[in-house]
Amino acid sequence: MAPIALLMVGNELLDGRVLDTNSQFLSSHFSQKGIEVGAILSCRDGINEICDALRFLSQKHKVIITSGGLGPTTDDLTREAVSEHAGVELENRPELVQRLEKWFLDRGRTFDPSNLKQASIPKGSKIIPNDQGTAVGFQLTTNDDVTIFSLPGVPRELHHLFFETVLPACEKELGLGTSLQNVGLRVYGLGESVVGSIIQSLNFSPDITISYLASFPEVKVLFTAARDLSKEQHQAVEALGNDVVFTTEYHKGFAEVVHELLLSKGVTVGLAESCTGGLVSALLTDYSGASMYLRGSIVCYSNEVKQGLLAVSDDTLKNEGAVSHDTVLKLAEEAKRVLYSSIGISISGIAGPEGGTEAKPVGTFFIGFSNETETKSYKFFFSGSRDRIRKYSAYKALDVLRRELLKLDPPRDALETREVLRRKDTAS
Amino acid sequence: MAPIALLMVGNELLDGRVLDTNSQFLSSHFSQKGIEVGAILSCRDGINEICDALRFLSQKHKVIITSGGLGPTTDDLTREAVSEHAGVELENRPELVQRLEKWFLDRGRTFDPSNLKQASIPKGSKIIPNDQGTAVGFQLTTNDDVTIFSLPGVPRELHHLFFETVLPACEKELGLGTSLQNVGLRVYGLGESVVGSIIQSLNFSPDITISYLASFPEVKVLFTAARDLSKEQHQAVEALGNDVVFTTEYHKGFAEVVHELLLSKGVTVGLAESCTGGLVSALLTDYSGASMYLRGSIVCYSNEVKQGLLAVSDDTLKNEGAVSHDTVLKLAEEAKRVLYSSIGISISGIAGPEGGTEAKPVGTFFIGFSNETETKSYKFFFSGSRDRIRKYSAYKALDVLRRELLKLDPPRDALETREVLRRKDTAS
Repeated sequence: MAPIALLMVGNELLDGRVLDTNSQFLSSHFSQKGIEVGAILSCRDGINEICDALRFLSQKHKVIITSGGLGPTTDDLTREAVSEHAGVELENRPELVQRLEKWFLDRGRTFDPSNLKQASIPKGSKIIPNDQGTAVGFQLTTNDDVTIFSLPGVPRELHHLFFETVLPACEKELGLGTSLQNVGLRVYGLGESVVGSIIQSLNFSPDITISYLASFPEVKVLFTAARDLSKEQHQAVEALGNDVVFTTEYHKGFAEVVHELLLSKGVTVGLAESCTGGLVSALLTDYSGASMYLRGSIVCYSNEVKQGLLAVSDDTLKNEGAVSHDTVLKLAEEAKRVLYSSIGISISGIAGPEGGTEAKPVGTFFIGFSNETETKSYKFFFSGSRDRIRKYSAYKALDVLRRELLKLDPPRDALETREVLRRKDTAS
Repeated sequence: MAPIALLMVGNELLDGRVLDTNSQFLSSHFSQKGIEVGAILSCRDGINEICDALRFLSQKHKVIITSGGLGPTTDDLTREAVSEHAGVELENRPELVQRLEKWFLDRGRTFDPSNLKQASIPKGSKIIPNDQGTAVGFQLTTNDDVTIFSLPGVPRELHHLFFETVLPACEKELGLGTSLQNVGLRVYGLGESVVGSIIQSLNFSPDITISYLASFPEVKVLFTAARDLSKEQHQAVEALGNDVVFTTEYHKGFAEVVHELLLSKGVTVGLAESCTGGLVSALLTDYSGASMYLRGSIVCYSNEVKQGLLAVSDDTLKNEGAVSHDTVLKLAEEAKRVLYSSIGISISGIAGPEGGTEAKPVGTFFIGFSNETETKSYKFFFSGSRDRIRKYSAYKALDVLRRELLKLDPPRDALETREVLRRKDTAS
């Protein structure tokens, strides 16, 4: 019997307004610890609906995690429903009232009495602290020995409370989980099916569960077994190539890896972004400490800025176009010069849906790189929506940077390359 | 009572390997037709698990749509479970055997006897044809008058069968669908609890379902009833204020509204972003056509760039600091000048987790605005994680822009304002 059931509460999940990602988050993390989830149920914001669901899930599970319905508005009814299901009263907890008053005071916001609702939890339950929002979670064991953990539905808060409280409680207090071990790796630059066939060709022994998760434009691979897996992890990295496996830390994203690499190398970076419109810069500055290497970025969305601020010539724009080797070569050099950095990176492309031509269809983009000794550019093509083209090309700029810093080969999907030596450039 | 329940079958949904998007597809399309979905349940590939689920969902729903478990492998058990639940036998249908043989022949593939499994469906059920894959769907009404539609889990096939067969059958045969009407609105600049109390104070009649959804930093509100709701929508906008209600189109986000406003006003914009690191620019360039107004953005993450490219004086940086009225006033004017735009917007702040001081704690940020006639700046404070401070301040820059273009009051949470008339500035 699978010990865990998930109950996702909220009308927005039943009329399609919101894609439920919390249940995948919870089930994948439980699964990694060898704890099975047996059912995931979404129900509407109603006391009867939530009670029906709790009754059903209690029949075959030891633990129920609820998500959502802990907010301050009238349609937030999880507290009431859990109380009714457990046959206990809702209790106003003074420490929660104090906490709420302090929360609003600290933020210079006025305390609305409707928020007092969030200070009541079912009698006998344990508070699950939440320092990220106004809703605390709670843990309650019912008479039929089912433990209910109620968490806020905001993903960031749910993630936090899950790692801080729920997972440790399930593993230690409730004795769930097994001695399963996980090793992972993350890939940028190969599709999920290619990653899958390469790993399958290694014929790993069947006691290993391998799971793939495409998290565009990255692919995550997780190996799970009841023993050490470092040999298999090493084999997989070898087979895929350490240029595309950018980390063996499963929870570390591509931008974070590049950020850490930049910090460790002592370089400084200036960007010139056209089609990505600031995405590359936004990806890096997500991490504290980016100011140590990132001088700045110029989003040159118009030709005026490419010409004026970044000195791309009339000739280049007329003859080659804004999406070309010549343009990104110049942009990379100028980004470096104008932003006082040791490295310049540039991107120009056609994100669509309009603007494509036969020679340069939507999805064509160029990346330029310039350092003290050389300037080069690459041409790429990626087919997809505007959103995906922008994201893919922003990642590709980081990929070019990473490969240069680690002295790896150019990206495998580069269609063309141009190189300009500094000597040549100074002469022009 | 909501007539529809969804049952998603498959272990991959319960261990986090696959994100279930089928249920959102189904529920949003039902919802658009005014047909309510009351529950969505995911269960493992097991006959007992599927039967338990069908029994539970049959208690309160007229129609159950199942997705998945119709493939040819041993873990595909939906056919068996539906038969057992309905108390009928599985029946091998000659037309389905023929269809499968032809399917493989047409594709030059060898017919594997394991596929014969897919020619059996519960006795008494109607075939739901599928020209996109080997699995057909089926429709069966049980003794307790619940209609079950079983569909393959491959999203492309499920979508197809849904539109071709399931939706018409629900609307016509089963007479579902109502004249439910939805009106919505979206708010930026008030918290969810404040929005909730203001709307509650309007005492709308109880036939209206009101649902709130916080989608940081926006709040969405949806009103649903079996009648026209334009009066109530209007009242809600009045009560909340049309400065914070930025749209009554439920599906339109804040950045998109500002994007459309900018397009309609014929202005051009240049940005100077410090703490947001390119986020404002990335938000606007998400939309095709942003090049009509967005000249560019300068991400001035370092003081060198603030001084060199954007001419913020040594004095200002030394005496007032990079996060100050004086700095953003100058940055807004320089962004306009350097990027050849009619409007300049600037942002500088402390996103944390490091860098805060007593006078300017983490979460302090300034926004500058400059057009042909004036330059002004606002000081704000927002408490939260680095990620949220960045997002909040990027939206606030768009908010300042929107309020200027619509001649609305300054943001309600502005702590201080400074104004510099052009005359004065030219003299300095």
